[in-house]
Amino acid sequence: MSNDKRGRKVAIVGATGAVGEVLLSVLEERNFPIKDLLPLASKNDGRSVRFKGKSLPVMETTETAFQDIDFAFFAATGSLSKKLAPIVAECGGIAIDKSSTWRLDASVPLVVPEINPDALDKHKGIVACPNCTTIGFVMALEPIRRKAGLQNVVVTTMQAVSGAGKPGIEELESQLESISRGEEPLNSTFAAPIAANVIPLCEGFRPDGFSTEEVKLLFETRKILDSHALNVSMTCVRVPVPIGHSASILIETESPLSPEEARKAYEAFPGVRLLDDPENNVFPTPRDAAGTDDVIIGRIRRDLASPALWVWQVSDNLRKGAATNAVQIAEEMMARGLK
Amino acid sequence: MSNDKRGRKVAIVGATGAVGEVLLSVLEERNFPIKDLLPLASKNDGRSVRFKGKSLPVMETTETAFQDIDFAFFAATGSLSKKLAPIVAECGGIAIDKSSTWRLDASVPLVVPEINPDALDKHKGIVACPNCTTIGFVMALEPIRRKAGLQNVVVTTMQAVSGAGKPGIEELESQLESISRGEEPLNSTFAAPIAANVIPLCEGFRPDGFSTEEVKLLFETRKILDSHALNVSMTCVRVPVPIGHSASILIETESPLSPEEARKAYEAFPGVRLLDDPENNVFPTPRDAAGTDDVIIGRIRRDLASPALWVWQVSDNLRKGAATNAVQIAEEMMARGLK
Repeated sequence: MSNDKRGRKVAIVGATGAVGEVLLSVLEERNFPIKDLLPLASKNDGRSVRFKGKSLPVMETTETAFQDIDFAFFAATGSLSKKLAPIVAECGGIAIDKSSTWRLDASVPLVVPEINPDALDKHKGIVACPNCTTIGFVMALEPIRRKAGLQNVVVTTMQAVSGAGKPGIEELESQLESISRGEEPLNSTFAAPIAANVIPLCEGFRPDGFSTEEVKLLFETRKILDSHALNVSMTCVRVPVPIGHSASILIETESPLSPEEARKAYEAFPGVRLLDDPENNVFPTPRDAAGTDDVIIGRIRRDLASPALWVWQVSDNLRKGAATNAVQIAEEMMARGLK
Repeated sequence: MSNDKRGRKVAIVGATGAVGEVLLSVLEERNFPIKDLLPLASKNDGRSVRFKGKSLPVMETTETAFQDIDFAFFAATGSLSKKLAPIVAECGGIAIDKSSTWRLDASVPLVVPEINPDALDKHKGIVACPNCTTIGFVMALEPIRRKAGLQNVVVTTMQAVSGAGKPGIEELESQLESISRGEEPLNSTFAAPIAANVIPLCEGFRPDGFSTEEVKLLFETRKILDSHALNVSMTCVRVPVPIGHSASILIETESPLSPEEARKAYEAFPGVRLLDDPENNVFPTPRDAAGTDDVIIGRIRRDLASPALWVWQVSDNLRKGAATNAVQIAEEMMARGLK
């Protein structure tokens, strides 16, 4: 994106996690200008990561690790982000945080670069990356919002196990093996067995009966779209899919919009790809999204009961839902001369 | 249900299919009064079925098989029901049909016995059993409708592969094996691989972009609830679950209803079971429903954006969604002296 090819000093907190590993791939694929790469993890246990053909030792995450760092990507726990992101900012670097810790902080930009890049200009050293589900969701809303406004949105998500990191992926795999051996699947990461099942809970419950994951779809969306009166009604469900979050979305617009106009709006929007040809059984599934950076849209149709539009959206929760969006934020900041 | 224990002559068309096998179990479990049981299939290829410890040879389905039959359960193709159900009726028997062929025919009752048993009184020899998804859905709506009326309902379903019969179950199993061997999963029953994936298509697409499965949720629900102005907005999704359909439902009522009142309405309704204690991570999943006759409800909560209620519903698509409901129809007809 930027013509400024000066190499940056980059740290990755959580470099051995599910998102951390994809971050390394995405930085390499996009040829992100890197002078120094510092992979960090909770402890220095002799592990290393591969980057551009080289093996880099993983170092322990400490408060003193962030001297001279330009960008620190946080893909670890929220408590670590809370403690360390301000230190990165104090050292003059930029913390790009994948946890939920800073997202609703009024002084922290919450950014999807295709949607609200201008929010980056007001950064104070910390930028938040939205939740993996929110990113695909707002990418499905914004092209429609720009054409016809948004009133009410009803969404049910179907979220991949990798949304819970490597433990989620491993739990699905080991449960599938248990079932194939005729044994009961044991669960610890999720609140019920996820193999051969769906679970109407992502993260944990709040006192009002919603899950913490669900309310992100409301509050993060309002902040990213700067639409504080927007209504979002939502249920989030975990499904036995390794990678790729899906969302079934009913969108009530302010002014009328035909399915054909919606298709054109999506086609013209960066980062969005259409797969929508029901006559030929063409629609997107998580398998189509896994490994790509596109948010893929299909099944656009006028609701039978109202002027609202139905939309089906899938995206790779580890790439556009996490690593790719974080790297795009850094690229956009360089393009704006912010780092 | 009935005190009339006179044995009936019962035929099962499609006795070796996924629903047919469960029908045999349910008839046995409920001690349905049977004098003669005639298992029928598309051809007489030497197969037999087990019923009450005996082996019964499967006979070929012919037009002359229905003499003296009291109840013929149809769990085969729609074209077979179209041809043969009228013959059952002409012979003085009652055809209870699981296909979609007769459901919207004005002269055919479409019945969920807990909801609209009176519709049976007007039967003319054919009774339709609703779609497996519709049955769970209307069981989630009717307790609410009786308390507060219904205005608009938005639903996204997550449907098990056994909704497509044995070929659906076998396709999921063989794809899981392919994936575990590192091979590409091949699909023929479903329009995309279903293992490690979700597919936003059940059955086939209509010209308006909805699937044939989706519109059943509108038209069958209106007929069963006798609510012809009810709006239903829907998306149906196939998920890699062997047994158990789920539905994420947003219900807008005519008059206000609190989550607590909704809970009481469900608890008092026959055939419904509550599993709703978010504080203790208690909610229903398809695994809880598989093998039971209950429609299980959980995650009842007030929408954050409106006075509508969110509800999560699961049920065994082969039992209450098919076989159990069909047998309940026959029991209700005997109790009413209709056969």
